[in-house]
Amino acid sequence: MTIKVERLLLNYKTLEEFKKFKEYGIQELSMLEDLQANIIENDSESPFYGIYFGGKLVARMSLYQVDKKFDKYFSPPQDYLELWKLEVLGAFQGNGFGKALVDYAKGKDLPIKTNKRIQSGDFWHKMGFESVTYDMERDLGENPLVWYPKGVKEQNNSEHA
Amino acid sequence: MTIKVERLLLNYKTLEEFKKFKEYGIQELSMLEDLQANIIENDSESPFYGIYFGGKLVARMSLYQVDKKFDKYFSPPQDYLELWKLEVLGAFQGNGFGKALVDYAKGKDLPIKTNKRIQSGDFWHKMGFESVTYDMERDLGENPLVWYPKGVKEQNNSEHA
Repeated sequence: MTIKVERLLLNYKTLEEFKKFKEYGIQELSMLEDLQANIIENDSESPFYGIYFGGKLVARMSLYQVDKKFDKYFSPPQDYLELWKLEVLGAFQGNGFGKALVDYAKGKDLPIKTNKRIQSGDFWHKMGFESVTYDMERDLGENPLVWYPKGVKEQNNSEHA
Repeated sequence: MTIKVERLLLNYKTLEEFKKFKEYGIQELSMLEDLQANIIENDSESPFYGIYFGGKLVARMSLYQVDKKFDKYFSPPQDYLELWKLEVLGAFQGNGFGKALVDYAKGKDLPIKTNKRIQSGDFWHKMGFESVTYDMERDLGENPLVWYPKGVKEQNNSEHA
């Protein structure tokens, strides 16, 4: 089976499909309001990537490239990807859809940071992600996990102090 | 019933009790390692507050005062409290322990920001917290909820741009 990851276009159909995902929240509601108010154009690019199966969206994630000047995780400091809302619908888990999304993000050849949900178990470790050294001022209630491309290391406290 | 909220001291007993909470994560592991390595002193103050019932810790939250210069939520910009890991153990829910913790935080008379978990339903609304206007660069995968003391308003995009 070939798995195709694609950038999701923002429209009412996509937003309706998002309702099937557990992590539906303020971000999706905000996109819906902006679409209704014509603040964003129909079919504009969203920060979401997804996988369709049988014509339905079965997996998704959100990606955002954070500017180097805000980088508190990587050494040397650099642009990195924040990844969130990675989710595969229950009935479609175990088919490699989650891995396909993460591989897609890795393909951009930037470090990646995500925030582990309690339920995600061993998944991120299998994907090559590691815990950072916890720093309360920076991390607060997060459980940050990062992926280092070649040549990238963890940032010292002093680099972002 | 009088409910007493107290600052939790960092020691092996507290860290053992933390294991009963679902949101046990990298923060707790880091405190345990620091205690074992004598980097933090036994019985030092933790960022956690909790409620004991029958000698056992049954509810907790973490609080951290964020400096004004990092404030992206409130107008005028000011020191505020980040609140996370608010949790009441299952068997003890419905007794006002969660509300007692939130009231304790409100008593510090600073604005409060938290990040809503999907499962927390109507609780935060009942506590007087409101959603912010979603801003992807700031909020990423968060669902921020805030509490405004008198005279404090939501910050405009332009104030933290």
